[in-house]
Amino acid sequence: MYSFKNDYSEGSHPRILNALLETNLVQEDGYGEDQFSQKAVELLKERIGRTDVDIHLLSGGTQTNLIAISAFLRPHEAAMAASTGHILGHETGAIEATGHKILSIEAENGKLTPSDIQAVLDGHPDEHMVKPKLVYISNSTEIGTIYSKHELEDLSDFCKKNKLILYMDGARLGSALTSKENDLQLSDLPALVDAFYIGGTKNGALIGEALVICNDSLKEDFRYHLKQKGALLAKGRLLGIQFLELFRDNLFFDLASHANKMAAILSEEISKANFQFLTDSPSNQIFPILPNALITELEKDYSFHIWEKVDAEHSAIRLVTSWVTKEDEVAAFLERLKSGLR
Amino acid sequence: MYSFKNDYSEGSHPRILNALLETNLVQEDGYGEDQFSQKAVELLKERIGRTDVDIHLLSGGTQTNLIAISAFLRPHEAAMAASTGHILGHETGAIEATGHKILSIEAENGKLTPSDIQAVLDGHPDEHMVKPKLVYISNSTEIGTIYSKHELEDLSDFCKKNKLILYMDGARLGSALTSKENDLQLSDLPALVDAFYIGGTKNGALIGEALVICNDSLKEDFRYHLKQKGALLAKGRLLGIQFLELFRDNLFFDLASHANKMAAILSEEISKANFQFLTDSPSNQIFPILPNALITELEKDYSFHIWEKVDAEHSAIRLVTSWVTKEDEVAAFLERLKSGLR
Amino acid sequence: MYSFKNDYSEGSHPRILNALLETNLVQEDGYGEDQFSQKAVELLKERIGRTDVDIHLLSGGTQTNLIAISAFLRPHEAAMAASTGHILGHETGAIEATGHKILSIEAENGKLTPSDIQAVLDGHPDEHMVKPKLVYISNSTEIGTIYSKHELEDLSDFCKKNKLILYMDGARLGSALTSKENDLQLSDLPALVDAFYIGGTKNGALIGEALVICNDSLKEDFRYHLKQKGALLAKGRLLGIQFLELFRDNLFFDLASHANKMAAILSEEISKANFQFLTDSPSNQIFPILPNALITELEKDYSFHIWEKVDAEHSAIRLVTSWVTKEDEVAAFLERLKSGLR
Amino acid sequence: MYSFKNDYSEGSHPRILNALLETNLVQEDGYGEDQFSQKAVELLKERIGRTDVDIHLLSGGTQTNLIAISAFLRPHEAAMAASTGHILGHETGAIEATGHKILSIEAENGKLTPSDIQAVLDGHPDEHMVKPKLVYISNSTEIGTIYSKHELEDLSDFCKKNKLILYMDGARLGSALTSKENDLQLSDLPALVDAFYIGGTKNGALIGEALVICNDSLKEDFRYHLKQKGALLAKGRLLGIQFLELFRDNLFFDLASHANKMAAILSEEISKANFQFLTDSPSNQIFPILPNALITELEKDYSFHIWEKVDAEHSAIRLVTSWVTKEDEVAAFLERLKSGLR
Repeated sequence: MYSFKNDYSEGSHPRILNALLETNLVQEDGYGEDQFSQKAVELLKERIGRTDVDIHLLSGGTQTNLIAISAFLRPHEAAMAASTGHILGHETGAIEATGHKILSIEAENGKLTPSDIQAVLDGHPDEHMVKPKLVYISNSTEIGTIYSKHELEDLSDFCKKNKLILYMDGARLGSALTSKENDLQLSDLPALVDAFYIGGTKNGALIGEALVICNDSLKEDFRYHLKQKGALLAKGRLLGIQFLELFRDNLFFDLASHANKMAAILSEEISKANFQFLTDSPSNQIFPILPNALITELEKDYSFHIWEKVDAEHSAIRLVTSWVTKEDEVAAFLERLKSGLR
Repeated sequence: MYSFKNDYSEGSHPRILNALLETNLVQEDGYGEDQFSQKAVELLKERIGRTDVDIHLLSGGTQTNLIAISAFLRPHEAAMAASTGHILGHETGAIEATGHKILSIEAENGKLTPSDIQAVLDGHPDEHMVKPKLVYISNSTEIGTIYSKHELEDLSDFCKKNKLILYMDGARLGSALTSKENDLQLSDLPALVDAFYIGGTKNGALIGEALVICNDSLKEDFRYHLKQKGALLAKGRLLGIQFLELFRDNLFFDLASHANKMAAILSEEISKANFQFLTDSPSNQIFPILPNALITELEKDYSFHIWEKVDAEHSAIRLVTSWVTKEDEVAAFLERLKSGLR
Repeated sequence: MYSFKNDYSEGSHPRILNALLETNLVQEDGYGEDQFSQKAVELLKERIGRTDVDIHLLSGGTQTNLIAISAFLRPHEAAMAASTGHILGHETGAIEATGHKILSIEAENGKLTPSDIQAVLDGHPDEHMVKPKLVYISNSTEIGTIYSKHELEDLSDFCKKNKLILYMDGARLGSALTSKENDLQLSDLPALVDAFYIGGTKNGALIGEALVICNDSLKEDFRYHLKQKGALLAKGRLLGIQFLELFRDNLFFDLASHANKMAAILSEEISKANFQFLTDSPSNQIFPILPNALITELEKDYSFHIWEKVDAEHSAIRLVTSWVTKEDEVAAFLERLKSGLR
Repeated sequence: MYSFKNDYSEGSHPRILNALLETNLVQEDGYGEDQFSQKAVELLKERIGRTDVDIHLLSGGTQTNLIAISAFLRPHEAAMAASTGHILGHETGAIEATGHKILSIEAENGKLTPSDIQAVLDGHPDEHMVKPKLVYISNSTEIGTIYSKHELEDLSDFCKKNKLILYMDGARLGSALTSKENDLQLSDLPALVDAFYIGGTKNGALIGEALVICNDSLKEDFRYHLKQKGALLAKGRLLGIQFLELFRDNLFFDLASHANKMAAILSEEISKANFQFLTDSPSNQIFPILPNALITELEKDYSFHIWEKVDAEHSAIRLVTSWVTKEDEVAAFLERLKSGLR
């Protein structure tokens, strides 16, 4: 049984474990004040090309989203997200649990546009309704699509004009930025969004997301929020060491590229076999639509999510590749898929 | 510079890193549904001697406290804690951020007694005040003291009689249970408290606390709370693998015993040098009262916390030993302390 | 300018003010422990036909909804409501501010059915999502429709079977129960819903809603929630005196009947003038669809809400009648509407 | 049985009921947008002598405190209050329920000083603790004392220097400002505090507190918070009409003066009878220390709170006078007290 279920099925890239071993007995201060975390933050700023951002290392995506959003908003302000947004349906009401409504927007391809948001603003004119304030986007999105530079610039301009906070969930930012269709760079982001995070967990780390706060007005006292929500690890070094290793050279991007490459092979071959896709994804999650009988056949040897029913006889499945997906397993899967057709 | 600042200054016990390496490429399900976490839970139940408890693995103490307490209480119910309690002064209002007041109790030696709690109950008779419901204790406490079996039984009886929830913060439970003065066993706890946690982070793990829910009425849907508060790690295996290693044999207790032994050497020798202690601690945190001049001298080569001023010329410092504290460093410190007296 | 904007444009029924005057200098205990509030509660129980319900008097609808729902739910549980539900779009995220998500359901005529709710349950299978727990309905609904006894019984059965809490917002319960199409009685409700409220503010009171908790498991400590959320009035007598007056005889129902009668006249005549309605409302809110030019004409002498655009040339307006709407003003409005057609 | 239990035992001043009657059938907009509320706000600004403050009318003290404090603070910020502060012990954790810790300060006479607050600031240096941000004071305090102009200026200067928000609970502001020892004027307050409220409920209104926000940075979007917490009354006119009446002439102050005068008579005579007082109160709440036997005697004909035990044979009781306390009842009580001594 081989798994295409997600990109966090294995541990971490071996270099990360080695780095943990090598630094293991060095005594350090706790709670992110260790030299590794501090160096990691400096290194990330260098890679982002901005020394004036604030960077905090956290454990996971839901944690990062809930702390950032609740720290950024006042009690009556709401977030907006595409209906497919992770915070809407897959985080157990984590944002609402901090007191904030999320306004759901039906959005093409999982991506938001200025006109989507304008419609929400128009529908929330006064104090009998929440005040829409933060725009939550993901890149890559939950359905594998990515934002072009142009799309993100439009969104950014609109948010600035309307005093909205633009926040990017980057759980799979590595995959987005190394996608063949991508024209954004890591260093473009600080000028375009108010805050974003660089996902480590889904790109080779054991655990870890790096939250980058670009907008000065959102920076103050952020460590208080981390501590209050249980996110400051006593051994914060665990996070610092990993990001140091991922960004010491090109490792972070190489790992993401590998995942994308494996997904691209899957996409191409499944396409050639004349199957359609639910979304047009250039990243490491793809959503082929297959006959239910074939899915049942594949499930004998592979694990993956059945995403949604398409019609009585077809469903979309989700295949996720990762930094460690083996090319021969991809080939074997495709073989199995093709043979299942006969 | 050698640090006696805390018990989380180093990484983890090498066996843990080896276990991470060995299991690294095994594909597993996420969010604590991996075989390692599940085996760890089974192993812990065995060690606790009860199969009917629910066990969840979390990342850190503040996270565990805030999730457990907010899951256990209804909105109008409050926690009670000794004024030295970690949740009162060192967690940035994490419990209050979930909506619950903590009632502070001035308590001898950091430990609560039935009469302490009775006084709080007497002072909270009606709906114009919060309803005191959960008793938070720590073992060992924040000032190094430990509960005897008899003390805990008294507290437990009182709580049962008064329909109060008794919750034990076990960030340093290893040190408490291996203290020379201890007469409690891990397997005693389920009958005495409604929930407790076994601290890994401060006893040799990289990260990780095991929350044990003993009272059936507190078990339902607990994983929802974990997810909602950002505590379900995608690579939950990271927690499972560590607890498997710590409890596979006697490692967890051996590590704590070592920490206690190092603290005992410090205590004895400092005592012999005719210094008093702020508290009578038989665990891995000790609080000697030293002349300020001597403290300044020691700070040149050692890092530790200055706990509180005692009088114009003396302060109590906190020395914390750990699973990895070196005996020769302890000896050197004592030498330095004695020579500083001349 | 005459207003059909809402049913709270005037003060209160004169008998209520007289009752306030007559009792004004009697000394009473505060916070709902006065004899008037206690008698009102007893009287309401009598009218409801059940002595085993708990009744609390509150100030307004949003306050009642937020306190009831947050008291009834655990942190990970969510409410469900029709997309037109008041708590979803017109209470400034009051429910979310207490930590709970509301799941929106597209519902025919503002009413929920078992199959609507089943679909939500099916979509929320595990701890990565909130747990749907409370079904929020309004009677009459926000768009004037009412639940038949049969519809409510179906919903009630479904909720019991699925361990869901059924909560009815009765801001306009008087209008619903006196509607010509209604076959429910006040005394039917305790067997069908877990809690509901009887709206006073929109039916002749100055202020006041009576929350009736029918399900034993939801009753405990409810006054704590009232106090914690700022709903216990020091002079709780203000609420008690009003409900005593409204239910001393048939006043409450007479006032609602009058409102319905006025709405029925408007509906019939507007219908005769060949206009359609957005919803088929038998209660005191009606939603005729009129040409925009006619609306502009009517706005010169009448105030009302423009509810939504229907097409380029037509909009639905909302006309609300009340306990004090004057029949001659209704006639004059209809005259104006008809003359505006020429 | 005559009650000295509190200052909200009766209804409202008759002029208020008359005003409600006279305006009863005027049609008005809801939610505080009626002409009465708007005129009341303008009138209050005039009386306060500042047109640049924002004023909102609310229903009660707990509601006002919880909405103001939660709107003013960010999630990690805490309030500070004297240990006798109403928000600490008599509001069922209302502030904590909005997520904010209250730091309790042992304070002489229920009043805070700069040095009290400095000590709290010193004890909260970093992100492992909440950030003390808002200073909550009451005038008059919960134990009857009042702030002198000099004391309030000192506190105000300190808060400005330390970027702290100074918030005054004025549930009994009328009594404070008309106390014979008072040297503060209503018009002094905007320059000294960031926000305060003028209590109506305990000074002759049926219901109602007027929150005055003086600091520009706290004003934005405040009505959203009112709505979200259930404080916007549909018939907001109920609040406006009352404040219009109380401040149309000197009624508000006359009522408070009467209460103070009645308390002064009680104080003087009880003093002459050689009893001590728990606090030195120049306002409408006094705390004489009486023999328990005498208290039992008095309880036969009078209701009042027993405040606290003083020694085995004496307790302090609380006597509260109000706008409507009858001078002959005061005399009768004193007679009873003196005769009880024999």
